[in-house]
Amino acid sequence: MAAAMTLYHQTVPQFTKVLSNIEAWLDLGAEYAKAKNFDVSVLLSSRLAPDQFHLLKQVQAACDQAKLTCARLTGREPPKHPDTEVTFDEIKARVATVKSYLATFTEKDFEGVDTRMIPLGFMPGKGMFGADFLTEMALPNFYFHASMTYAILRNNGVDLGKRHFIGSLKLQDL
Amino acid sequence: MAAAMTLYHQTVPQFTKVLSNIEAWLDLGAEYAKAKNFDVSVLLSSRLAPDQFHLLKQVQAACDQAKLTCARLTGREPPKHPDTEVTFDEIKARVATVKSYLATFTEKDFEGVDTRMIPLGFMPGKGMFGADFLTEMALPNFYFHASMTYAILRNNGVDLGKRHFIGSLKLQDL
Repeated sequence: MAAAMTLYHQTVPQFTKVLSNIEAWLDLGAEYAKAKNFDVSVLLSSRLAPDQFHLLKQVQAACDQAKLTCARLTGREPPKHPDTEVTFDEIKARVATVKSYLATFTEKDFEGVDTRMIPLGFMPGKGMFGADFLTEMALPNFYFHASMTYAILRNNGVDLGKRHFIGSLKLQDL
Repeated sequence: MAAAMTLYHQTVPQFTKVLSNIEAWLDLGAEYAKAKNFDVSVLLSSRLAPDQFHLLKQVQAACDQAKLTCARLTGREPPKHPDTEVTFDEIKARVATVKSYLATFTEKDFEGVDTRMIPLGFMPGKGMFGADFLTEMALPNFYFHASMTYAILRNNGVDLGKRHFIGSLKLQDL
């Protein structure tokens, strides 16, 4: 039986899945580096334009979008992550930490969040309703950084395809 | 007064806005080509990897995700777009056509769509509930192709930033 859409379902399980997808892309990047005999840190510092975040920072940004979206929608104080990661293992650990944080949220935490006013830190005196915040800010930002992560790896020759981006699906029999 | 989230709000106005953003990115690409004295078709045929869609095809794909998501969620037969665009003006016209199509949908068309079964054309005998289809397939796919469009332009030196990706926001006074 299908349940009506909630902001919990739009965020916690979906962010978790895409973060798991990102872990898999990073692993494919590490395998590629090994096969081609170069250091994986070359990938981590790659970018598509000189004034754009490099790969490691794109992953940090995707992690932050997932963490901060769930924290801000539900009014929780998010854990701090000071962006100190440098190595492959450290950025993998950061993703795992954020996935563990997401696992602390329940559907109940998101009750009434659609119509809750979410203040915007970067725009004093302004806010957005929860549903608008999710649709116009949180999801586009999260997928933006996930996509740039994917794009940088793809641009460097890592063998990724759309299936790696989408991941598993909740299929039903017709 | 805030309304609870609906699949209409998650799709029609948001897809329309992002397609308008894409029109603005393309215009910035055309200005850049003019300033640098190269043909804009060079941008349209650019890609990040040899086995990836080029820019023009990324825009076609973003258009298709917007169109097909709304059509399939609401059970309508979508208009056909045979991907014949080659020139800058033609791809701009395709985006405008899809925006006009999106404008034919109303909130009423999306009533009950959360729990509607959406058959998957590429997976005979399988489907997804509307809310899952939106969250796991339609939004990631739409933002993927929008992001690749942005990334290819960015990779070629077009002066885009995150604000161009996000676009306007439904702000409220606190």
